[in-house]
Formats: sequence, structure tokens, C-alpha cells
Amino acid sequence: MERNVSSIALQREGESFLFDCGEGTQRQMMRYGITFNLDGIFFTHFHTDHILGVVGLIRTMSLQGRTDALRLWGPPGAERTLRRAESFGSERIAFALDITELKAGDAVRMKEYEIQAFPLEHRGPPSIGFALVESERRGRFNPELAVQLGIPEGPLWGRIHRGETITLGDGRVIEPSTLVGETRPGRRVVLTGDTRPCAATILAAQGADLLVHEATFGDEEADRAAETGHSTAREAAQVAKMAGVRELVLTHVSARYARDAGDLEKEAREVFPATKVARDGYEVDVPFRDEGGP
Amino acid sequence: MERNVSSIALQREGESFLFDCGEGTQRQMMRYGITFNLDGIFFTHFHTDHILGVVGLIRTMSLQGRTDALRLWGPPGAERTLRRAESFGSERIAFALDITELKAGDAVRMKEYEIQAFPLEHRGPPSIGFALVESERRGRFNPELAVQLGIPEGPLWGRIHRGETITLGDGRVIEPSTLVGETRPGRRVVLTGDTRPCAATILAAQGADLLVHEATFGDEEADRAAETGHSTAREAAQVAKMAGVRELVLTHVSARYARDAGDLEKEAREVFPATKVARDGYEVDVPFRDEGGP
Repeated sequence: MERNVSSIALQREGESFLFDCGEGTQRQMMRYGITFNLDGIFFTHFHTDHILGVVGLIRTMSLQGRTDALRLWGPPGAERTLRRAESFGSERIAFALDITELKAGDAVRMKEYEIQAFPLEHRGPPSIGFALVESERRGRFNPELAVQLGIPEGPLWGRIHRGETITLGDGRVIEPSTLVGETRPGRRVVLTGDTRPCAATILAAQGADLLVHEATFGDEEADRAAETGHSTAREAAQVAKMAGVRELVLTHVSARYARDAGDLEKEAREVFPATKVARDGYEVDVPFRDEGGP
Repeated sequence: MERNVSSIALQREGESFLFDCGEGTQRQMMRYGITFNLDGIFFTHFHTDHILGVVGLIRTMSLQGRTDALRLWGPPGAERTLRRAESFGSERIAFALDITELKAGDAVRMKEYEIQAFPLEHRGPPSIGFALVESERRGRFNPELAVQLGIPEGPLWGRIHRGETITLGDGRVIEPSTLVGETRPGRRVVLTGDTRPCAATILAAQGADLLVHEATFGDEEADRAAETGHSTAREAAQVAKMAGVRELVLTHVSARYARDAGDLEKEAREVFPATKVARDGYEVDVPFRDEGGP
């Protein structure tokens, strides 16, 4: 078994989240240097290969001394399933699980971004995917021009950058638009769980910087993908293309392609060239478009 | 994390059992070529690091088409804990779990051996260790002498070997003891779960061919071993020495020794030279004493 079951760590400016937490996730976190001091875990659905690892992970967190509540989000059924995870085994967990059930369309509002749930098409109870959508960022501040205008570096720069109109000592009024460029878009990162290629993913991933989409099968198993509620690599690429994303990463590859996922990558790239197949420990950076993006 | 949590596969003449089944066991089984067509699983206790893997494993067995009931044995609480494992997640298992609770002193009788439960000393609810004790084997048959006595190779040899006194065509009576040597001892393999060094293990392991004993810590953490209900490598070696076993294998090594368990091995060997520290995928053969044993 060359690939572990599903879990994706998302790290953003000091915050760390997991998306799904299959069996063996804690060992993979240790192997790949992912912090156990998580801010929360999002679940796409409650098939065992996406959730079992949380049982061991929360026990290790507890042994490590965590006392802060851990936030968990998932589709309806989260409360029941995750309480089972909490009470499994004979140890007690030293911190609270703060569980929130999300329906498609719900959003979890954070300070500078939100995480939006969208509906997937998979077997069984409702599955959801997640879009991390950052707020717009302030425009760039122009320090050279500020100096030319005789505004010394200091607190004034910050006030102007934050949008305040200020009056200088000599009576001049400085509008922020003089020194601050246009607001810049935030990033959009979209992660599916297990799913057929579906319109809701295309909608959620419109113009996304990164789409992480499942690709359980290759072309020759397209029928099986349809029967089992999964996607082929080519289908995932079609979703990426229709959504106009910048980059596609394929995950949840069937064990039969585990040693060589080259065919899957090739089939996807015929449709959408900016595709990579993830492997255990694979990392991808998501730069802002004005800082290294195409 | 260089070492996975606990699971030991025992293979004996076409039968395969697991002893404990920690998170990630199914992946390790695939990696090391252990059959999924198990005859059963024995559990020493119900701390999560010894049981969580059964949740994923039985789902994979079910996906692979297993319909035969799977036998599971463990200390009191097995029924409740393993039914939770069965109902965890949203998939259905296509075969039955046949769960038996064992108290220390109970034995599971198989055709040519039995598996005896003995009490361990660990934190929390009762833990048990297991001794696989083979029945005595028949003595060796002497084919050269049989030919000299004019008994042709054929069914008669088997009847004599199985202990039957036979009368030849010419009236001679052949006692089995003429052609069959003394009965030979079967093998004894003893496995602990998590435990302090304890008298019950020494008793169960008297003259064992193999003792697999936990050794969570090294000498410098002897206090911690005592506090947490575990053993040091040296303590495990003392148990092996007192029991007079042929070979000791140490398992359940703390993550702090995961990269280099050399110190643990050294400390144990000062007491009991025939010691090895297991690593993931480590295999040990247990020959009969008259076929390669010392």
C-alpha cells in the first residue's frame, strides 16, 4: 500500500487545519512535520477511510497535554459520528470537541477568510466539499511616493494604508487612494472529498488558485467510477478546466494505481495541463497572484 | 514516527492470527505481505493504540468479499468495544464478528494447540497476555528399522506411528514403541500486551520458545515505566531470564527510542543475551527444538 488514506493539512499564516483524517493520519503528520496543535478538522463525509484517524489523533493530542477545545466541522451526522470517535477506546480525552454540523451553503467565518461548504455527489449520506475563500487584501502602499510627499515612515503610513484620510501638519489632505493601489483578490482553495464530477464543484472552484479533486480511477475504469460515486482523473481535469482554476492536484487514487499514477496524470493533463497527482507528503504552495502566480 | 503502533501477526501451518490491531495495521499488513484472510484476532486490552486498526481492517475485509465470520477474543469489555468498532463509520460489514471475552486462566482450544490467557499488570481495566501452547507431537517414526523388520512402506506405517499395535501377516506383533520414539514437546510462544514485569508472565513463559514482551522504556525511565504500567527493556529481560525462555523479542518501544533502539537492546542483553528489539515488519521463526533449536 503505497498511499495512505485521506487527509490534507492546510496551513495558513500560523493556523493549521486538516481536511479529513483517515487511518494513520497521526503517523503521517509526524513523518511530514505537521503540527499536532491543530486549529480544527473539517470532514467531507463519514466513510471510515476519511475519519478513523481522528480517534487516535485526539488521544495523542490529549497525551501531549492539549486542553483547548478542538473545533470539528462536518456534514449532518458529524455530532453522532464524532462523539463515537471521542468515546472509542478506554482513555479519556482531556479537551472538549466543539462539533458543528454544516449543510451545503453554510460558511465558517474566520477573521480573514471563510470556509464555504458545497454539495458533492457521492454514495450514502450527504458529502460536502470545502472552499477556503480569503477576503480581499488592501492594495499596495507606495512608500517611495509617501517619502516624496514628505510623509515620514511611521504610524501615519499604517493609517493611510488602512484607508484613513489624513491631514498633514501643513494642512495638506492625503486621500488613501493617492498612496494605496487597488484592493487585491484573496486566494481561493477548493477541496473535494469523494465525489462524481459535479456542477457544484465547478461553481465553487470558479477561478480558484488550487483545486484538490479526488481521482480514484483512470479512463479504463470510468464505469466503475460512475457506479461507486467517484471520479476519473480525466473527469477531475474537466472540472478544473471548466472552473478555470490555476492548478489541479489529484488525490484519493485507488490502490491499483498506487505505485505508478503516471497514467492518471497523463490522462488528466490531456484535458488540463496544470495537473499533478499528489503522493503521501506532497506539498503545494498557493502564492498570491501578484506574488509569483501566473 | 519510525514505528507503527501494536500488532503482531502469528502464522502457524496455514492459520493466521493477529494479536492486537493498532491504527495503521492494515497498511502494515499490505506492506509486509500478511494475508487479510485471518482466522481471528486476539486483543490484550482496549487502549486505542491496540485496537483502532480493526475498524479499518474489517471494512477492507468486507470490501474484499469476506463472508466468513471473524473470531475475536479479548478481555472483559471485548463485546462492547468491538461492537463499537463494527458500527463505527457508515459502511456495513458483510460478515459476522464472533466475539468471545476471555478471563485470565481461560484457554481457547484449537486442534493442535491452545491459546491460554494470563493476567498482566497494566493501567485500567484487566489486560491479558496470551500463550500459544502446542500439543505434544508424536515421536519420530524409524523407517529404516521398519524396512529391516519387513514392514513395507504404506498405511501400516501411519497406523503404527499413530500408536496402534499391529499384528503382521506372519503373526509377529509390533508395538508402536519399537518404531516410534518418545513424544516431543510442542512449541510455546508467549505474547504480552502492555504490562509491568509480572509473575504471571514468568509462569506463562516457563521454557517458552519465544517470549514477545513489551519494553516501552530504557533504564533511565524506569520510574516512568512503573508509573505508567509499562516495562523497561531490562525488566523484560529479567522476566525472560527467570522464565528460561529461548528467545526474547522486545516490542512497544516508546517513540523516543524509535530511531535507535540500540540502547534498549544493550540493556536487555546485559541480563538476557538472546534478545532482539523488533522493528516494523520484523519476522521471527520459531523452530521445533529438535529441528534447529539450541
